[in-house]
Amino acid sequence: MRAVPVLDTHSIDPPASAPARDLRRVPIHPDHWYPLAWSRELKRGKTLGVRFAGDPIVLVRTESGAVFALEDRCAHRQVPLHAGVVTGESIRCCYHGWTYDCSGRCIDVPYLGRERLPNGVRAYPCREVRGLIFVFPGDAALADARPLPELPSVADKAYKTRRFGREVKCHYSFMHENLMDMNHQFLHRRQMGQMRARSLGRRRGEDWVEVDYTFNREEGKQPVGEALVFGASKKPGDQADKSVMTVRTGYPYQTLRIRSSEGTLVMDLWIVYVPLDAAQRTNRTFGVLSIRRPGVPFALDLAWPLLVWFTERIFKEDRWIVEREQEAHDAQGADWNHEVFPVINELRDLLRSCGGRTVIPIREAGDSA
Amino acid sequence: MRAVPVLDTHSIDPPASAPARDLRRVPIHPDHWYPLAWSRELKRGKTLGVRFAGDPIVLVRTESGAVFALEDRCAHRQVPLHAGVVTGESIRCCYHGWTYDCSGRCIDVPYLGRERLPNGVRAYPCREVRGLIFVFPGDAALADARPLPELPSVADKAYKTRRFGREVKCHYSFMHENLMDMNHQFLHRRQMGQMRARSLGRRRGEDWVEVDYTFNREEGKQPVGEALVFGASKKPGDQADKSVMTVRTGYPYQTLRIRSSEGTLVMDLWIVYVPLDAAQRTNRTFGVLSIRRPGVPFALDLAWPLLVWFTERIFKEDRWIVEREQEAHDAQGADWNHEVFPVINELRDLLRSCGGRTVIPIREAGDSA
Amino acid sequence: MRAVPVLDTHSIDPPASAPARDLRRVPIHPDHWYPLAWSRELKRGKTLGVRFAGDPIVLVRTESGAVFALEDRCAHRQVPLHAGVVTGESIRCCYHGWTYDCSGRCIDVPYLGRERLPNGVRAYPCREVRGLIFVFPGDAALADARPLPELPSVADKAYKTRRFGREVKCHYSFMHENLMDMNHQFLHRRQMGQMRARSLGRRRGEDWVEVDYTFNREEGKQPVGEALVFGASKKPGDQADKSVMTVRTGYPYQTLRIRSSEGTLVMDLWIVYVPLDAAQRTNRTFGVLSIRRPGVPFALDLAWPLLVWFTERIFKEDRWIVEREQEAHDAQGADWNHEVFPVINELRDLLRSCGGRTVIPIREAGDSA
Repeated sequence: MRAVPVLDTHSIDPPASAPARDLRRVPIHPDHWYPLAWSRELKRGKTLGVRFAGDPIVLVRTESGAVFALEDRCAHRQVPLHAGVVTGESIRCCYHGWTYDCSGRCIDVPYLGRERLPNGVRAYPCREVRGLIFVFPGDAALADARPLPELPSVADKAYKTRRFGREVKCHYSFMHENLMDMNHQFLHRRQMGQMRARSLGRRRGEDWVEVDYTFNREEGKQPVGEALVFGASKKPGDQADKSVMTVRTGYPYQTLRIRSSEGTLVMDLWIVYVPLDAAQRTNRTFGVLSIRRPGVPFALDLAWPLLVWFTERIFKEDRWIVEREQEAHDAQGADWNHEVFPVINELRDLLRSCGGRTVIPIREAGDSA
Repeated sequence: MRAVPVLDTHSIDPPASAPARDLRRVPIHPDHWYPLAWSRELKRGKTLGVRFAGDPIVLVRTESGAVFALEDRCAHRQVPLHAGVVTGESIRCCYHGWTYDCSGRCIDVPYLGRERLPNGVRAYPCREVRGLIFVFPGDAALADARPLPELPSVADKAYKTRRFGREVKCHYSFMHENLMDMNHQFLHRRQMGQMRARSLGRRRGEDWVEVDYTFNREEGKQPVGEALVFGASKKPGDQADKSVMTVRTGYPYQTLRIRSSEGTLVMDLWIVYVPLDAAQRTNRTFGVLSIRRPGVPFALDLAWPLLVWFTERIFKEDRWIVEREQEAHDAQGADWNHEVFPVINELRDLLRSCGGRTVIPIREAGDSA
Repeated sequence: MRAVPVLDTHSIDPPASAPARDLRRVPIHPDHWYPLAWSRELKRGKTLGVRFAGDPIVLVRTESGAVFALEDRCAHRQVPLHAGVVTGESIRCCYHGWTYDCSGRCIDVPYLGRERLPNGVRAYPCREVRGLIFVFPGDAALADARPLPELPSVADKAYKTRRFGREVKCHYSFMHENLMDMNHQFLHRRQMGQMRARSLGRRRGEDWVEVDYTFNREEGKQPVGEALVFGASKKPGDQADKSVMTVRTGYPYQTLRIRSSEGTLVMDLWIVYVPLDAAQRTNRTFGVLSIRRPGVPFALDLAWPLLVWFTERIFKEDRWIVEREQEAHDAQGADWNHEVFPVINELRDLLRSCGGRTVIPIREAGDSA
């Protein structure tokens, strides 16, 4: 990773001559695995109603512990199946008792003979991986060929992992740009001191883009939260800037990894932003943050509450600012961004080319969301 | 009533070949008497602002106790007359003091001579019957010829009556279908045990449809609330299934009556769903439930709090589910129902043919209500 | 002022034959000075985000105490500058630290060389007068020629001044009509007793209209609040009716002045209604009320809490009624007013002719605001 060409990140990319389609109206591509819930949210014999880009989906954990995902809408009168009753390995609608199995087939209507049962509801491919329940909302025929995220650090005992996330009221693209543009450390000046990022260069593949950063502290002393992640530095500019942070969007996921000067992976964040509503103006963020345990036993466990506090603060500030970006976009009815950082323009190009082919029909400025 | 032909209620009606107009966009027909308030809600010398399908209406009880109904909008600047002051037998607008009599005529503008008074506001035919204030929102010329509901059990001392109701956020048609389809007992499984309805057959007239049911308990013991209505049964299947329940929509009202095996009317419910907003996505339900007093004096009075609790629970569950139906319809922008019960398809046909001739211009899926 | 012709205020003006454009859709004219905040709301080294007719504007008070106004939207990613940090005489965006001076020029992007700084943001002419921060939202070239309000009574020690105001959810025109039509005393019957206004006549210029009133008490005794403003009267009809009240709309401002029978200015109200949202369905009212001190020292100061209470009650009732007017207009989608008072028809004509030339594209009846 040291051999990458150092690009001039200070040149201003010319704006595209042909007007590109508005990135904030590009739907996320459905032919990927998306987490729709944490495993712990779905108890045995219970249901959970979730959404992907406006589509209601019910997650069911049967009495045997298996998980399946159906359209969350009874074939009869379209009331939510998540209000129903899990019976063995099937789900029974709460209203008139129509019953569906894991494939969505209707297997019982109490007041109809078995020979004339109606059609059932759509089923979604569904897998459970490392505490996340993944669903494949697109073309089910492509699901098996599409790899599931592996999250290796989560399984590695050398790391301690925190799962976090919330609803954020913005298009997923604002999230990707926020994390990838480390020039926004000014937003976190209270937690990060006066850090300044320096980009070492970017790389691009067909469905990914990544960028490396080093950091310099300009003034002030190192805050405690930062020390937990980067390691404590003796004096300004001493150590933090020897670590390298790599931020990568591997569509549709994003990772942020920090390696020490010795090349050890000290922090490994995997994160994804799942659109909830049809207009994709709201996403649920699922973040999995693994921190390498230091040499001293239990040191990380003791410091954990502080790390939780630190990451929550950072995430809260990021959430606030991306929601303001979305608000501005909604008010303007168009993208007025004047982006000067080449990495971000590269990322936006990637998100456009990997996204869905349709255009989200958003409402006019001033309409309520 | 025992001689009705037993229809095959298990056959699936074929969907109509020509696409019928969406029942959820059929406005209720205005040429009927609709209750807009309970009498107890309108005190002497006071006003009450109500709505019928988006039209604001002010009910006024004068100092002599008479009730009249006007358009709730001053002719001058359209502010609500219900914020005004009742003066003798007239209503004075709170803003500039324009005054109207029971016919809607403007009889005073304090700063104008009597000889040049402006036109007044629309008046509605209005009657008070058994604790309900009825208004005729349609063509006033038809009001006298149209019968008012009689509610005979309310006046009969052999019965004790409960008045109930609330706003429910759905089209009135969902309410009719909910009450008429007794296969939805599964929704009330906590209160009703495992009751199973069996329809004995349906009858249809020009502006009415009705269906008879008997009930069987499949398992569990009889809950107390149910016993109050149906009478206590010694063992499962013993007695409840000898009563006959008749649910009838006599446009625009609905009744549910239970007769014992001896033919006595033991329960008599009259109910109507009055649209509040112009889109008719919200209704106010007015229910009048009369229960026949048993032989033991005061037994029903003692059990009354339990009956209130029981009916409130049932009504709350019904309200919840019909609001989910409306939500689904709004999200889909169309009726996706796949109805398999012939009685309900008959009812829907009736509601379409008796309803208003226009189409409610509802908003697209995703718009806020 | 005694020589004005007494017009027949009781004649009903004929409605205009050609349909005039709907006054409630006439935007306020932007080429005037509008107060967007009280001075006390903007502390040294702080910002304040405000709106004029939907345009976000940030007011900045620098460390030296100067005030400037910019478009409240960073040129980079359109997040609000009011969340930024005041640094010396400039404002730094909270996200990536882009920095602007009082003219809106971008003077620093921390990660870009100074030689390739991007364009900045729009600046608005801005002045601070007698505790109000005025901004000129229209064509900046016209700002210097357009006079700022002078508010002479505020600076005169013979008067004591109260500043008040709030958001009111209506078009500014309803506010002008409310204050100018003193026949609405019936609305304030609890505070004002049974006062009856009598208009003495009206005058009209190119951008102003004014009307004189005297008052008579019809019954009841004089409330205390009223006495504070008009002076105590020995008996009904004794003194109040010798004072003359003049209400004037001098576009876009409004004044209400009361002179005693000796010609002394005893009350001087200056008020303006600044549209907040693009649809101009909400305004922020800025009122400056100066009361002449009576002969007895400190009498007015002692009575001040009562006067505050009195004016708040009156303003609250007015706010309530104009919001009902707006609601009715929104529900009807058009102006159904049937105005019979010539002064108000004159005022409406003035507001139309002085207003912006465009038409506010309001939404249809029933849409949420």
